[in-house]
Amino acid sequence: MSLNAEILSIGTELLLGEIVNTNAQYLSQQLADLGISVYYQTVVGDNRQRLLKTFGEAFERSNIVITTGGLGSTGDDLTKETGAEFFGKKLVMDEDLLAELKAHFKRSSFEFTKNNEKQALMPEGAQFLKNDHGTAPGCCISENGKMLILLPGPPVEMIPMFENYALPILRDKSDIKFFSKRIKILGVGESKAEMILKDLIDSQTNPTIAPYAASGELAIRVTASAVDEAEADKIMQPIVDEISKRLGSNIFSFDDSSIEEAIVELLKQRGYTVSIAESCTGGLVTGRLVNCPGVSDVLKEASITYSNEAKEKRLGVKAETLEAHGAVSKETAIEMAVGVKNTSGTNVGLSITGVAGPGGGTEEKPVGLVYLGLCINDKTYVKELRYNGDRAKIRNRTVSAALDFLRRGLIDEL
Amino acid sequence: MSLNAEILSIGTELLLGEIVNTNAQYLSQQLADLGISVYYQTVVGDNRQRLLKTFGEAFERSNIVITTGGLGSTGDDLTKETGAEFFGKKLVMDEDLLAELKAHFKRSSFEFTKNNEKQALMPEGAQFLKNDHGTAPGCCISENGKMLILLPGPPVEMIPMFENYALPILRDKSDIKFFSKRIKILGVGESKAEMILKDLIDSQTNPTIAPYAASGELAIRVTASAVDEAEADKIMQPIVDEISKRLGSNIFSFDDSSIEEAIVELLKQRGYTVSIAESCTGGLVTGRLVNCPGVSDVLKEASITYSNEAKEKRLGVKAETLEAHGAVSKETAIEMAVGVKNTSGTNVGLSITGVAGPGGGTEEKPVGLVYLGLCINDKTYVKELRYNGDRAKIRNRTVSAALDFLRRGLIDEL
Repeated sequence: MSLNAEILSIGTELLLGEIVNTNAQYLSQQLADLGISVYYQTVVGDNRQRLLKTFGEAFERSNIVITTGGLGSTGDDLTKETGAEFFGKKLVMDEDLLAELKAHFKRSSFEFTKNNEKQALMPEGAQFLKNDHGTAPGCCISENGKMLILLPGPPVEMIPMFENYALPILRDKSDIKFFSKRIKILGVGESKAEMILKDLIDSQTNPTIAPYAASGELAIRVTASAVDEAEADKIMQPIVDEISKRLGSNIFSFDDSSIEEAIVELLKQRGYTVSIAESCTGGLVTGRLVNCPGVSDVLKEASITYSNEAKEKRLGVKAETLEAHGAVSKETAIEMAVGVKNTSGTNVGLSITGVAGPGGGTEEKPVGLVYLGLCINDKTYVKELRYNGDRAKIRNRTVSAALDFLRRGLIDEL
Repeated sequence: MSLNAEILSIGTELLLGEIVNTNAQYLSQQLADLGISVYYQTVVGDNRQRLLKTFGEAFERSNIVITTGGLGSTGDDLTKETGAEFFGKKLVMDEDLLAELKAHFKRSSFEFTKNNEKQALMPEGAQFLKNDHGTAPGCCISENGKMLILLPGPPVEMIPMFENYALPILRDKSDIKFFSKRIKILGVGESKAEMILKDLIDSQTNPTIAPYAASGELAIRVTASAVDEAEADKIMQPIVDEISKRLGSNIFSFDDSSIEEAIVELLKQRGYTVSIAESCTGGLVTGRLVNCPGVSDVLKEASITYSNEAKEKRLGVKAETLEAHGAVSKETAIEMAVGVKNTSGTNVGLSITGVAGPGGGTEEKPVGLVYLGLCINDKTYVKELRYNGDRAKIRNRTVSAALDFLRRGLIDEL
């Protein structure tokens, strides 16, 4: 039986536009990886009638409905009650859960009030889903080929609950189990990657291959159907190898890790330290690297040298260079990279200088012109970029390009 | 007649989880500001049948449906065709629009192909909505009390089209017009702000007052119903004044501008320049300030001094201070702020040093301990913060707190 799922996000704060529905994106991606089709995402408020009606519509179209939100202890929270009502189930007190909940409150020095008891109620016959990061448990009600999975709203609680407890249930429900790998690349556009892989994409049925663009990067999703993960790995490996051969050093991750993690790993492998000089990106490149725990082993410092004066004083960029070529030039980019490396005493220096706009552009040096400089030991590299778009877009693309440039320098592919 | 609206986001990329639906959040917020209730947000793919069915369901519940996406020139894009079909309208070629489109393509050196003509087709009798940032125009079909507004998918095109062309239509449709102001505050939690404003919130009916928490900041929305904006302003002013009196210097914006814009404005007013020394935030504080165009007038430079060595060499933090108190201490924070100010030659120096985790914490200095230092001319200030949560959460809260600290220093409220 082919499986269709719908995602139903519950919460007035979503309808008022107070928060962005990142849960729907996360779950959609996870279901795509499982080979389960999603035709609808819906957001409704904490309202019993509308919720009941929406359950009815969703189960007419799909055999799986996954909800997020409305599992808390306040009167607003109705998802579990309404889910039970839809399936004609009573809510029964789970005494073990209640004891656990009380113990949790005792530890956290919050008072256990009567309405907290509600969280220990479970729809009759439902499968309990543990919340390792909060007090509201989830559950799964399964009947007549319909499955309702209730997850909490906060992503920090929802994501681990889905991964550890709901995902195995969904995988078991499929006659065929799907397993996916994401191969992440930077520096090749979506249409070019599709061209390079076209014959593979067209000819493959198991595994299937699909490129996905997301926030400046590109991921190739390889999905295999198999009886278990080991068999899936065996089916995927030849295709992963072939993609790897064709896309080569454009690939920075086979395990969904980030470009900044790849860079920190490469620096550690080589025993290198890095320093960064940023102008138009104003700290965003360094901010990305600092996302990685443990970055302090390899990142010594960064200078955000916005003024020419700072470029001279902090990095030793020559006044003549700034005079003759300007702050946004190949020459300045190289002197910034060499300068930050030398004054910081690192093996690697990376620099970024450009015109982010909206002001400051000239005919010769328009908004969107960016130079990247890189110095690794005694070798220097420079790259010119030309971008369209507004300030935010230019800066974001520059951040991706700078991280890509640094990674390619480290693997000697510049 | 009370107005209900639904937001219908169209695109397979949303159902596959490739992108987050920020459009739905933006439109929900805008509609809330207009006093229009939103009970449903829905996401469907580019599929004619499902789209038709969804239009039917949505118009059974609501009198306004706003769609985003599916207005492009490729075969996938079906929103305009399906919207016209739902209302039983033909699509007719708008010759002026076609001529304009051809001229646009000529300027941009892209080739005008046959399928681009599709973008100049408009449902009979529909009101045309201009796209100032792309080639796909929107439109508004209005009949028998039902209104369908079709907007493009990319936020950079959708937002200006909504604000400039769709919003006036929606405002005209209401018998009562709603106008909103957002008062933005930082440094007071949502529950405390609610307490401070409780009697106002409870007693007011026009304008209404509602607090909203969003990404670390808090906004107080004041919504008045009035015949026009001038009357709305007159109704809102006494309440805005009262809120202003109660929340005082916690307010950084009365016009929806950002905290970084407020800071850049304050620096300009005082003729000050600023430099920043970041440790655990790794460039994120400077990155936020650099969001403002024109920041180069007031921001000279920033140092991301991750290592102790860099703190000494770049900022002149004393080795004895680091030895005696450690890198994460009040003393180091102050020396970093003074050091970055003096070595950069600015009037203001801001510093951030802390333990972002997950490693590096000790009993004395746990993960989440952060110090902010500030030096304005000859005055110094320091602040200790203690946060819970993971690395990303600690860093994000620290960024907000640092910007708040800088702003309060500039208005002499520390």
